Amino acid sequence: MPTPPKAVVLLSGGLDSTTTLAIARQEQYAVYALSFRYGQRHQHEILAAQRIAAALGAERHLILDVDMRQIGGSALTSELAVPKHDSADEIGSQIPITYVPARNTVFLSLALAWAEALPAGDIFIGVNALDYSGYPDCRPEFIAAFEQMANLALKMAVEGTTPIRIHTPLIQWTKAQIIRRGLELGVDYGLTTSCYDPDPAGLACGHCDACLLRLRGFAECGQRDPAAYQ
Amino acid sequence: MPTPPKAVVLLSGGLDSTTTLAIARQEQYAVYALSFRYGQRHQHEILAAQRIAAALGAERHLILDVDMRQIGGSALTSELAVPKHDSADEIGSQIPITYVPARNTVFLSLALAWAEALPAGDIFIGVNALDYSGYPDCRPEFIAAFEQMANLALKMAVEGTTPIRIHTPLIQWTKAQIIRRGLELGVDYGLTTSCYDPDPAGLACGHCDACLLRLRGFAECGQRDPAAYQ
Repeated sequence: MPTPPKAVVLLSGGLDSTTTLAIARQEQYAVYALSFRYGQRHQHEILAAQRIAAALGAERHLILDVDMRQIGGSALTSELAVPKHDSADEIGSQIPITYVPARNTVFLSLALAWAEALPAGDIFIGVNALDYSGYPDCRPEFIAAFEQMANLALKMAVEGTTPIRIHTPLIQWTKAQIIRRGLELGVDYGLTTSCYDPDPAGLACGHCDACLLRLRGFAECGQRDPAAYQ
Repeated sequence: MPTPPKAVVLLSGGLDSTTTLAIARQEQYAVYALSFRYGQRHQHEILAAQRIAAALGAERHLILDVDMRQIGGSALTSELAVPKHDSADEIGSQIPITYVPARNTVFLSLALAWAEALPAGDIFIGVNALDYSGYPDCRPEFIAAFEQMANLALKMAVEGTTPIRIHTPLIQWTKAQIIRRGLELGVDYGLTTSCYDPDPAGLACGHCDACLLRLRGFAECGQRDPAAYQ
């Protein structure tokens, strides 16, 4: 039996990245899960990522520290209030203050570094251009430009031994499609956490953009969200 | 008097980044110097960067922690021996083991994050494609691809308020040209440190690629290198 190819999978502990990890496993990759302590308010994301990496059979799970709090500019890494709504229909089309400057660029760059050290030519990221929150670094044109840059940045890519491919299996899916695919693959969404503003016990608020998009996705599938809400 | 535009300048504490900072100041930018504790063996780089940021009039100096040691793959972040030679002519054309996977990509990505938070549209990096050590992420085609990606990644660029420009003033200069320009601008190169393998007191080895390229540069200028060697 040939050795399975290695893939680095960005794993936040949320619904999208968990489904992405399940897809990479389904595609027979040996998964190297990568999470970040980047100064987010809630450490429960890291705990969720650890449970998910173990449950879905990752070969390794690396948790990197990169302190984006010192940089500022986002509600997710500061004391700014996270916006709340009563329904997903109220979410505006403007980029909200939960945007973290250059976050996917920073995370993908560190994924490149690990990919070259492994080595692995495949990187999976669960970005989504439809049911997203208007973040520019979730769009296909950003991913294509990043992949092009990566193939000029890495020794293994420039020398032609291992080119980089960025996989974004969810990029054109609705939240409901993502959930449906994950359930087919046996994902336990009770392990995942999406909330931008959970309480100290880790219970989701149910009213931030991430909670509302997630709840609407489950409703559209006719499924109950197994996450714990306040 | 108009407010000077802000620029993020990557500052390692070495000769190239210090000259780059001096050039950004000469071009009337308000300089926001950015250094990294990324797991390099020698903390004297950070001390040098602090002295240089103060001496050259940076508005702020941010030192970010990003632990690339956990990623591995380089002599600069591990216990692998740094290659030594007797002369710069012995340095091979292959990419050496002092290469750190995706380092400039990671550093520039964090510079983007800070640029957006400030906001600043200009980023300076002292990469050099001539007297370099064969690193792929020091070439003009890498920088061009990074800039293109950056303008698709950031909210301020996508919305058109602040596009990103990556400045690489040294990219086509020889080490001697860099030193000559720095001396014209009054840079005290005694503040800088280039060695890949200094002793515990911070004295340069004089035999790694970085030391040899630096010493040859000073010799070509007919100048004495004011750095302290073992």
